[in-house]
This record gives sequence, C-alpha cells and structure tokens, in this order.
Amino acid sequence: MRAVDIIQKKRDGIELTDAEISFFLDGAMGGTVPDYQLSAFLMAVYFNGMTKEELKTFTSKMMHSGDLINFEGIKKFLIDKHSTGGVGDKTTIALAGLFAAFDIGTAKLSGRGLGHTGGTIDKFEAIDGFKFPETKEELINMVNETGTGIMGYSDKIVPLDKKLYSLRDVTATVSSIPLIASSIMSKKLAVQADGIILDVKVGSGAFMKDIDQARELAKTMLSIGDSFNRKVVTVLTNMDQPLGHAVGNANEIIEAIETLKGRGPEDFTELVETIVALALQIKGDVSTLEEGKAKVLEAIKSGKAIDHLKAFIACAGGNPDLVDDYSLLPKAKHEVEVKSNKSGWVYRIEAEEIGKSAMVLGAGRETKEDIIDHSVGVILKKKVGDYVKEGETLAIIQYNDKNLDSSIKLLEDAYTIEDREVSKTNVIFEIHSVNVL
Amino acid sequence: MRAVDIIQKKRDGIELTDAEISFFLDGAMGGTVPDYQLSAFLMAVYFNGMTKEELKTFTSKMMHSGDLINFEGIKKFLIDKHSTGGVGDKTTIALAGLFAAFDIGTAKLSGRGLGHTGGTIDKFEAIDGFKFPETKEELINMVNETGTGIMGYSDKIVPLDKKLYSLRDVTATVSSIPLIASSIMSKKLAVQADGIILDVKVGSGAFMKDIDQARELAKTMLSIGDSFNRKVVTVLTNMDQPLGHAVGNANEIIEAIETLKGRGPEDFTELVETIVALALQIKGDVSTLEEGKAKVLEAIKSGKAIDHLKAFIACAGGNPDLVDDYSLLPKAKHEVEVKSNKSGWVYRIEAEEIGKSAMVLGAGRETKEDIIDHSVGVILKKKVGDYVKEGETLAIIQYNDKNLDSSIKLLEDAYTIEDREVSKTNVIFEIHSVNVL
Repeated sequence: MRAVDIIQKKRDGIELTDAEISFFLDGAMGGTVPDYQLSAFLMAVYFNGMTKEELKTFTSKMMHSGDLINFEGIKKFLIDKHSTGGVGDKTTIALAGLFAAFDIGTAKLSGRGLGHTGGTIDKFEAIDGFKFPETKEELINMVNETGTGIMGYSDKIVPLDKKLYSLRDVTATVSSIPLIASSIMSKKLAVQADGIILDVKVGSGAFMKDIDQARELAKTMLSIGDSFNRKVVTVLTNMDQPLGHAVGNANEIIEAIETLKGRGPEDFTELVETIVALALQIKGDVSTLEEGKAKVLEAIKSGKAIDHLKAFIACAGGNPDLVDDYSLLPKAKHEVEVKSNKSGWVYRIEAEEIGKSAMVLGAGRETKEDIIDHSVGVILKKKVGDYVKEGETLAIIQYNDKNLDSSIKLLEDAYTIEDREVSKTNVIFEIHSVNVL
Repeated sequence: MRAVDIIQKKRDGIELTDAEISFFLDGAMGGTVPDYQLSAFLMAVYFNGMTKEELKTFTSKMMHSGDLINFEGIKKFLIDKHSTGGVGDKTTIALAGLFAAFDIGTAKLSGRGLGHTGGTIDKFEAIDGFKFPETKEELINMVNETGTGIMGYSDKIVPLDKKLYSLRDVTATVSSIPLIASSIMSKKLAVQADGIILDVKVGSGAFMKDIDQARELAKTMLSIGDSFNRKVVTVLTNMDQPLGHAVGNANEIIEAIETLKGRGPEDFTELVETIVALALQIKGDVSTLEEGKAKVLEAIKSGKAIDHLKAFIACAGGNPDLVDDYSLLPKAKHEVEVKSNKSGWVYRIEAEEIGKSAMVLGAGRETKEDIIDHSVGVILKKKVGDYVKEGETLAIIQYNDKNLDSSIKLLEDAYTIEDREVSKTNVIFEIHSVNVL
C-alpha cells in the first residue's frame, strides 16, 4: 500500500477501505506518512468529504490513537455536553448545579486554549482556590461526590487529533465538516458517557456561519455517533449575538449563578433548561421536552440547583459563600458605560467583536503565553430586539489598566441599530438526535 | 501576508494576486513555506485550477527560479520542439537532420529520466563516441556548426519545478492541467527560442488519456505562451499505439535514419513532416502546411536531410558512416518473433505495455540507478488496422540475456485482435497555435 495512491483515491472521490484509512493514519502517527502527504490528503477531504463508513473508521483511528477513559467507578448516569464554542457561553457552569440536582453525572474534559474569553476551566479558575482534578481517580471521586467532574485535556487523549489539527490550522483545512465532526466526536467517544449533547453554535459569532452548514455538521456528528451506537443529541443554537449578558470570566460565573437563582437572562435560561431537559430525556426520566423543562424550573425554584453548585465549588476548593456574596470573586477596578449614539432597535450584535472587546481587556488569550485577567469583561445591557434611546447605555465595560479605548471601539462597532422595529431571535433553532427520542 | 491565507483563497476559488503567488513561491523556494503548506496548495490547485493571469505569474516565478538561457551567439532561427512523452517517439532524431536542412536551429534541453525507453539523450548515446555539450558555449558552437544542439537539463534551470514535481509525485497532484502546463512552459520559456512546437500525446499510452484533456492542456500551454508573447504551436497526436515500428534506443536511431531516407513508417513520417512544416510556417518560409510538407519531401528525396544528420553525428563525436551501415550500432545478441494466436484485424496496441516489454529487456530505466542497454527493444510488424493471420509475426523482440519471457507476455497482452475490419488511425488529431499562423 502506498500513501500517494490513498491520496489519489480520495482526490478522485473513491471510497477508501478501512485498511487504507488505517494504513494512512497509522503512518501519520508513526511518522512514515510525512506531513506533506497528510496535508494533501486533508485538502482532498476538504473537497470530497467522507462517507459514513469512512468517517467511522477515521474517527475510530483518531479515538484509539491514545488512551480511552471509562469511568467504571462511577454509578451515575453520565452526560457529556459539548459546545462548538461561542461568546458568553457559561452553560457548563450552570449545568454543574442542575445536572447534579437530577443525579446526572458529568465527567468531561475541557479546554483552555485560545479565545475571546477563557475556556470553562479558565472561567472556574476565577474562583479563588478552585482546583481541577489532575488524575482520573480524582475526577471519579469528584463526580461521585458532586455529580460534576471537569478535567483538562491531556496529550494522551486522541493525540492524532492534536497532530491533525495543528496541520489543518496552517493548511486551510480547518473548515471541513467531516474533519470537524470526526475531531469533536473522537474526543467525545474517547471518554465514555451514557449520552452526548452537542451544542452547535450558528451565526456570525460561531464557526458555522449559517444554518445549513451547522445542520450538516450536526448530522455528520450524529451519523458518527450512530456508527458507534451512542445516544447523541445536537442542538443548533443562535450565535448571531453573544449568549446572555456577561462576557468574561468572573462575570460569567455570576451570570450562571443568577440563572440557577431564576434570575438569568432569557436566552441563556432557555438554553440551559433545554439542555437539562434533553439530558433527562436521554436518561429516560421524562418523555417530553416540556416535562423536562418543568422539572428544571422546579429544581431552580426549590434551590436544589444552587445548593449543588455550592457543593461542587466547595469540593473543588473554592469558597461556596461566593454564590451569595459576589465580592468574593475578582472585580475589575473600573467600569465605564458605553452609550448609544442613536435611537432605534438593536438589529445585530457581532458576537466576535464583543468577544474581542473583552479579550483586549485581558479576559482571553491571544497567544498561549497570555495570562487571563478573570475580573475584566463586558456586560451587555441591550440585546437584539431591544429598543434603545440615544444616550442610553448599550453595555458596561469592566476593566483594569489595559486597552479601554480599543475595547470601546470594538464594542461600539459590534452594535447595529436600525430605525425599524426588530423582533427578538430564538436561541434554539433545531434539535436532532440518534438512538434517543 | 500568510501562506495559510493564500492556500485558503485558492481553496475557495478566489483569484490570487501576483504578490500572493510570488510570496508563496518565494517561500517555497526559500524554505519559509514548508512542504506541507505547498502540498495543500497544490491539491487546492488540482481542484480549482488557475486563471490565465495566475498561470502567467506562476510560470514566470518558476522560470525565474533559476538561470535563463539565451543564445546570443546563434544566428539561426531557433525552434524548440517538445513532446509530452510517448512510446517509440524518435522525432528529435529525425528533426536533427531536417531542421538543419532548412537552416532552422534547435537548441534544446532534454531529459534522461525514467521511462520505458531512454530519453532523447539516451537514444543518441546508442551511437558509440557520441558526446553532448556540457556548457552553454559548447551548445552554441554545436548549433552554429550543425543546426542542432541538445544538452541535458541542469539543476540550475527552473529548480522550483524540480522541487514542485518531486512533491506532486508523492501527493497525487501530478495530473493537474495547470500544473503540467506551467511545468512544461516554464522550462520552454527559460530557454530562449523563436518558436515552440509542443507535441501533446493523446491516448492509452500517454499521460493525457483523452482528447478533451489533451486539448485543455494544449490550450493552457498556448495561453501561457501568449502571456509571454511567444509563438507556440500545439499538435495533438495519437498515442493509442506506439509511434512507428521501433521501440528501444539503437533501433529507434535506425528508424529515424530510414525516415530521412524516405523509408520510414507511415505514421512517424507524417508526424515528422507535419512538425517540420509547422516550423517552416513559424519561420515564415511557407504559408501553408501543404507547402511545408512538400519542401520536407524534397529535402528527404535530395538527401539533404540525411547529410545534415551525418554532419550532426560527426560533430558530436560519432561515426557518420553508421547512417549507411547499421552494424556500427549496438545490436542485441538474439531476436525472437512473437506470433499471433488468431487471425483478424489489429484493434489496439497498448503503447504502455509495449514500452514495458522493451523496458524489462533493459531499454529503459525503472530506477535512476539502472543502466540502459541500447541494443535491445521491440520492432512492431503489425500496427492498428493491419490484418494478421494466425501464426503470422506480430513483433520482433531484440534481446540479450534478460527477461525475455516477461517481455513476450507484455507484448502479447498489448495486442487486441478483432474479427471485424478495423480502420487505420490518424497520427495527427488537431493543431492549435498562438501568435503564428
């Protein structure tokens, strides 16, 4: 077998056999297939895609390129919720309280990575003393005790994905649906969970710019999940504006807590309710989404959700009192209100620009070496569909000493205000699943 | 500027600017654009092609990646004839006599390379004592004295093409029309000639399998030639069977000589006449192809053509008497006749298989280290459209000590004989040109 013939078959749109994909990817891992053949192959995949059967083998090879994690010590029903990445997404924080309230476990690997704001791990680190598990045993203990365990990715999980991703990043082959789908799914499949919920963000602030692309990605991931007989739900959600009001780290912790107290922003609350309701459906506790949502409201009202979040924070070494005393969280030295220079309806808020306006303050990492300032960020006072008067506040910038001017500029540019009335947008677009409902 | 953005533009089918192509190819030559980016780019070109403007810049960068050769010391009108490579193609040998007969010079670079039979240089080396120029000055002297100068390619001519080709070879990006066209044209343009004649082979034995592909390649090369204001003619010719009867090295020299004596095979004679007639048109000596062909016949009849070939051989250090005494050429120890096992009309002769049947005897190189045996080869006694009786000779194998059995097998497999009458095929399919006729 020769790598060049495998590239040629893919180039010509002929389905590759399991043996061919295995030969090629083993060679890529082992160094006998050099990067220049790998990148030509990835570009051919960009153009010609992969069949369901190819994707199964491809994802399986990725998944088995490193350690598999199963959680034999965990008795709970495990849900792994993953988002393709959006601005203001603090869902995992809220789920830490809610999943636990329903005895659903979550044992997930999260990224730090680069981005407008930190990853989930960075956000939790806004809490003084918070420490994540460093071994699988610690993770299992944490899940058994609190329901929720989050650990950083290790290089031992799906190392082939890491290799492929770094090559895709410099060869313009990142935005290939089958490559994205197999990258995400290989990581989900390497970590055993009873159900997988994938939040696929759609819109100007997301990687998937339109609903058709997002639907294709969702269906591709479902198809892979189906190949491995897993229960998978995909939720296509709106990222044409940031999620909720808060964009940063500490401020997102606060917003998640407020949501568990029943005072969260409408869109974020709707997303959290839906995801938990879907988890209850996967688990078999409810038969409809409405039934699930009703249970979620109950858990919020009764205070169960917030109690479980407190337990999780305490278990991780943080002070649970912060849930009722936000002054225990890092706070930026200054705040400034950004006012609207015209009256009208908010037509659009470019999520990416809002993310950048938080990042330049220090809320995210532009390079791996950057250190996150957990206290800074942006609070949006107006969202799409809101009416705003000239001189009224659009948003608040929470800053310390750095880049206020460029943050204001980015924030102002992110808002589009129109003379005519604009309707509010839904946060949930579509839900699809396999082996579940 | 970043290489990844240039790859992405090409991937998305957006025309690249001159500056972008220059940046990318300079980086490829200089080592700042690594091979894995180059191969992803080449695969994107495979799918999306290149525009006329892109091809101009791309070819120009290739051409200027090394030395340019002009022939200021040459007074003759220079024609560079190039073939995309076929089995039994001994055209350059015949042209050495004919071009000179019309005071047309040819100063070309030829390959050795791998293949079923040797390159033009290898074929001439069948002549004992034959020595090619090693410097540009020797080449110019040879052209001034005999009309014909042929020199091996040096690494200093179009080194970027060498780099790209070796990468294309292992990444399944060889068969891309714009990449083939710019590779050929960059080498033609780097060596100054007054006119370029490109023989594009079409058929099962050629790189271009069908007429549409071949026409596209021809038009792409013409378009590049036009961008550089060069006179270019492309001739699409038949490679659904080997050209002429002889396939090898010494035996091809003999066939070329026979053709200059007016006793050549019909198809090869037609091709040689056409190419010389086209050269006369480019030079402006004749206004129609027919007029040109008449002059060629005259040069053959009068013995002028053969005299010029003798002068060329003598100038290169060979014994010109071999033109009338083929025993001065290397001769294989044995011959065997391969007979037909049925009666009928020859429907097809797979040129590639015939080439291999000569190669296994030692007529060509499978690896760079192989040493060519100039004496061995194949003589076809029957060509497409010929009637053959059971037991009649299809071909003669001229061999020494090696691989007779596999040569016979390959030769037998190459022939398809049908019960119904088959018509003869034309050797010339189409002629196109720019800045000429």
